Amino acid sequence: MSEKISGIFTPHVVPLDNDGEINEPEFRRYIDWLIEGGVHGLYPNGSTGEFTRFTPEERRNIVRIACEQAAGRVPVLAGAAEANVRETLKACEAYAGYGARAVAIVAPFYYKLCADSVYAYFREIAVNSPIDVTLYNIPMLASPIEIPTLRRLAEFERIVAIKDSSGDLSFMMRMITAVRPDRPDFSFLSGWEAILVPMLLVGADGGTNATSGVVPELTRMLFDLTRGGKIDEAMKLQYRLLELFDVMLFSADFPQGFRAAVELRGFELGTSRQSITEDQKFDRAQLQHLLRCILADFGFVAPPEDACPVRENNPERHQSRQIVDGVMNELRGRGLV
Amino acid sequence: MSEKISGIFTPHVVPLDNDGEINEPEFRRYIDWLIEGGVHGLYPNGSTGEFTRFTPEERRNIVRIACEQAAGRVPVLAGAAEANVRETLKACEAYAGYGARAVAIVAPFYYKLCADSVYAYFREIAVNSPIDVTLYNIPMLASPIEIPTLRRLAEFERIVAIKDSSGDLSFMMRMITAVRPDRPDFSFLSGWEAILVPMLLVGADGGTNATSGVVPELTRMLFDLTRGGKIDEAMKLQYRLLELFDVMLFSADFPQGFRAAVELRGFELGTSRQSITEDQKFDRAQLQHLLRCILADFGFVAPPEDACPVRENNPERHQSRQIVDGVMNELRGRGLV
Amino acid sequence: MSEKISGIFTPHVVPLDNDGEINEPEFRRYIDWLIEGGVHGLYPNGSTGEFTRFTPEERRNIVRIACEQAAGRVPVLAGAAEANVRETLKACEAYAGYGARAVAIVAPFYYKLCADSVYAYFREIAVNSPIDVTLYNIPMLASPIEIPTLRRLAEFERIVAIKDSSGDLSFMMRMITAVRPDRPDFSFLSGWEAILVPMLLVGADGGTNATSGVVPELTRMLFDLTRGGKIDEAMKLQYRLLELFDVMLFSADFPQGFRAAVELRGFELGTSRQSITEDQKFDRAQLQHLLRCILADFGFVAPPEDACPVRENNPERHQSRQIVDGVMNELRGRGLV
Amino acid sequence: MSEKISGIFTPHVVPLDNDGEINEPEFRRYIDWLIEGGVHGLYPNGSTGEFTRFTPEERRNIVRIACEQAAGRVPVLAGAAEANVRETLKACEAYAGYGARAVAIVAPFYYKLCADSVYAYFREIAVNSPIDVTLYNIPMLASPIEIPTLRRLAEFERIVAIKDSSGDLSFMMRMITAVRPDRPDFSFLSGWEAILVPMLLVGADGGTNATSGVVPELTRMLFDLTRGGKIDEAMKLQYRLLELFDVMLFSADFPQGFRAAVELRGFELGTSRQSITEDQKFDRAQLQHLLRCILADFGFVAPPEDACPVRENNPERHQSRQIVDGVMNELRGRGLV
Repeated sequence: MSEKISGIFTPHVVPLDNDGEINEPEFRRYIDWLIEGGVHGLYPNGSTGEFTRFTPEERRNIVRIACEQAAGRVPVLAGAAEANVRETLKACEAYAGYGARAVAIVAPFYYKLCADSVYAYFREIAVNSPIDVTLYNIPMLASPIEIPTLRRLAEFERIVAIKDSSGDLSFMMRMITAVRPDRPDFSFLSGWEAILVPMLLVGADGGTNATSGVVPELTRMLFDLTRGGKIDEAMKLQYRLLELFDVMLFSADFPQGFRAAVELRGFELGTSRQSITEDQKFDRAQLQHLLRCILADFGFVAPPEDACPVRENNPERHQSRQIVDGVMNELRGRGLV
Repeated sequence: MSEKISGIFTPHVVPLDNDGEINEPEFRRYIDWLIEGGVHGLYPNGSTGEFTRFTPEERRNIVRIACEQAAGRVPVLAGAAEANVRETLKACEAYAGYGARAVAIVAPFYYKLCADSVYAYFREIAVNSPIDVTLYNIPMLASPIEIPTLRRLAEFERIVAIKDSSGDLSFMMRMITAVRPDRPDFSFLSGWEAILVPMLLVGADGGTNATSGVVPELTRMLFDLTRGGKIDEAMKLQYRLLELFDVMLFSADFPQGFRAAVELRGFELGTSRQSITEDQKFDRAQLQHLLRCILADFGFVAPPEDACPVRENNPERHQSRQIVDGVMNELRGRGLV
Repeated sequence: MSEKISGIFTPHVVPLDNDGEINEPEFRRYIDWLIEGGVHGLYPNGSTGEFTRFTPEERRNIVRIACEQAAGRVPVLAGAAEANVRETLKACEAYAGYGARAVAIVAPFYYKLCADSVYAYFREIAVNSPIDVTLYNIPMLASPIEIPTLRRLAEFERIVAIKDSSGDLSFMMRMITAVRPDRPDFSFLSGWEAILVPMLLVGADGGTNATSGVVPELTRMLFDLTRGGKIDEAMKLQYRLLELFDVMLFSADFPQGFRAAVELRGFELGTSRQSITEDQKFDRAQLQHLLRCILADFGFVAPPEDACPVRENNPERHQSRQIVDGVMNELRGRGLV
Repeated sequence: MSEKISGIFTPHVVPLDNDGEINEPEFRRYIDWLIEGGVHGLYPNGSTGEFTRFTPEERRNIVRIACEQAAGRVPVLAGAAEANVRETLKACEAYAGYGARAVAIVAPFYYKLCADSVYAYFREIAVNSPIDVTLYNIPMLASPIEIPTLRRLAEFERIVAIKDSSGDLSFMMRMITAVRPDRPDFSFLSGWEAILVPMLLVGADGGTNATSGVVPELTRMLFDLTRGGKIDEAMKLQYRLLELFDVMLFSADFPQGFRAAVELRGFELGTSRQSITEDQKFDRAQLQHLLRCILADFGFVAPPEDACPVRENNPERHQSRQIVDGVMNELRGRGLV
């Protein structure tokens, strides 16, 4: 029987070149850096990895490279959602062949399905998959996996974990209550690192956290402090990471803020596949300036040459800034200001 | 300059065989039937056509067949959204080659983008597309196209229409107010046939309506009556169609209710690509029984041998039925009832 | 049996003096003006009348004055929602005594109740009320009255109408379908005047429209044109009123935009009971300037001395302006801009 | 300077007699029991206390009795929201006179106000109140108090605390980050006891928790264990309390589940002010049976004579049961089942 999935898995971005193609050498260099930074596993084709913006062939390629480069040093949790169950199962087979530890499959999206249909979808995958399956619940973006559905799905041994990105701590507790007694091997992962310490304290096994792609040293430290019972230290670090998380999350369309931060750690990510306006390019430069200030406080990068903004105790500012900029751009584009 | 897009376009389902592959002969027969039924145009790869459940190659194939079979009898509006702008543009080129009148592109989904990013996305497409573009706004499922964004996008001649599936009549009036004075050639299509007559009365140019794939004769009649100023007759028909629409929309995950109805008109649609449970199969049989009763009232099919349920003036019953069944199934699956 | 409730009822504002007390003389003068302007009825203690911001005694007083001043010229539909069923029934008795045609009772708010509880609430009122009851559905602000609940409530003769402020035309059609066959005397009123003409065309009996408190002549004309079958003229007027409606609705917290417009028609409304900041006072002055421009186009007031903004075809501008101002104020208050 | 508000405050129900009037002797007996059970303070006129269903005079009476009976043994946080700022300030004066420690004022409800208006409302109260003010944020039911607004309001010394009922742990951390550095005396209270231990661990000062009105001994123990650093024990108790909380919250319209549980602890609560159907009365009896089973496990009451349902690890069952019952009642009422 395979080991329980636990620890911090990185839903990593994918470096591109200036033609927008996957930059394989930089991608491999980034994977090495993540592993050296202490992440417990890799999570290619997650939401942070913009899996919907790649073709099926590219998604295959991304997992293949991740598995090759990890080379057994850390497990790989491979995002395997494709157009339909048949295509998804083909991806499962491929990823099993590449050596992935398990696949992660987001609930059906675009169409919002009822609970029974969500169950039927995962059941068909569970019955036919040659590799362990992690459910991925992200109710803001996809059909919700509700607790009764989770209970029914936990009857399949192939389903070994759930990643929940709702950020709802009560929901995590309800999931654990519903499943753990019958499936002590089942793993619960939180995708909401703003409260990773509390998630671990209520019993989560780990997280799949985009922030670990930016500061892998710190999310590992957060995990180790919490597991080691040093709650006060862990909470202090949790609060420090909150600012970074909020800025990356709220200052641009997800996951562009995370891409901007990874660049500051020394990686060339190339031209994003998401179109942006000239105004947004300017905003991104400003965001990166701010991120440099935050990362400099942690000692990861040199501070910028020009002054950093006052930013103590003001976690919402960047969100407001974005709103103002957005509205201003709107009005500008319509000749009103 | 091309003719303005107007009338009823059918976002049609795609017949499959028992292996789940596209059933090309049946698909061609269905297209002929639709055109003979009076639809003004075809709309392959719409939401009704479950475009997300096909592979990129299959989507190409669907449009190719639709264009071939239409053979110039009616225009084709081809759904062209792919994984990213580059892939979408490749589809636009292909569909231009097949002879489509225009493409229709849904706003980015899964990720919810800000207004500026929605603008940037469509701008890049508008500048590079070799074929006219219809915007597709479906805020329940994808990033919203707000009115200021629409105004800015209407500056591109390549963008010639918007299909709106919000069902919000005030919003339709606001769109028309914002764009029509500068772009009298711009077409407004409603995807919400429950109020198609009022939509036409406030100035919409037509609709892309799944119901026209089931009763093309009636949606055409609705259009002609309204355009001919026979408002009272049109409204009576609108009310009669409301029951059919509600049953198809609310009795199963979209678009399975529409598929169930198309089968009753004499087409083999094969095994759906959406997994369903045994309970759902039973529900589908019950739904089809009810749909047979409704379609029999219109004279399109023979009534079922066993009695039809009383159903006058009770548009919500089926929705409630579905809720009850869904909950019952949940409880049953968990051994509680 | 009483006459069916139909036509345009005005959910009117209440003039206050500079101490914030009800300004009775101005209130009576306003009622006379509304009746002379052609409204079919009065609707004191509606949402536009800020009923929640008055004490129970003041609400009694408002209805008493309205009934006295109407003096039988037009019927009065009196908002009667109080803290609980017993208090509400006392208000019903009082309003019956004042000569109101019926009461209007919003579904329970603050707590969001389930359908059964909404039913139980109105049933208890229906059984005990000495005066006809109008249900008031405003799902954005209060517990929703769903169609099955409406059907059950329509079994009580005391319940004679529903006012729906959802603005959802399909929902209006579904309500009519569900109730009218068994209750031809039951009245359907729409609170969403942006689409009053379509609402009437699908069979609504009238509206309770805040705009009729600002331009009673025009809403009456809209009603008469539609009833007279002059659909084209009615739709043209509907489009012209849309701009006014949108500016009043979206430029300030509801119903402050309507209060600002009523002042321009020559009434002293005094100090609002809603606290506002200095920045908001400035915004209100700007809003009133714009409203003066719009009302001047209709010939109701003299245009302002300084220039009117270009505003053709731009219904969302004011909303954006409000967002910008709001955000700017936020940032200003925090020393950031 | 007054002591910082901290610990568990009970937003208690109000016992009524069989005429629906406040049952003062039982109310006083209940207060004594709560204080003996270890609650740190009382919170009359909270949402649990159904403040909106009482008249202004009754609300005064409720606070007067609570203050009298507490008699300085524990502080009283008095809900003081009235129809408008002037009426609210009169209540503040009265409650100061009764000896309340502070008032708690929910953000304006019914109308959803913009951030500036929420600020203006509380500013006017802060400037004029003779008693300390606690903000009450419950975004599901009232206008939200966003973090920039909270920062601006924290500049007023009169505002000493915020109660947040969103249940969002990240939001609690953001509030603390935004305010605590400048206002170390400012108190943060959580209204979401499902995660009270994590709330305290991230730095909240206490809670206003309806569950403490049912099992005051246990919520006090939860607080003391957490403050004493016994996190493991605290978490175990937190998980045990989760089932009770979920059943009380999800099995009936809030706060009827809590009323049903308080009765089991030996108090006569009388006839609720919320109308219910016969079916709902039956549901309430079933709910009380289940609650008796849960409370019996804690040793607070004798188990019921008939068997308790199997309920391990199944927190959602009661919610589903309620849905089924609700739907069944709907259908039954319409003669369909």
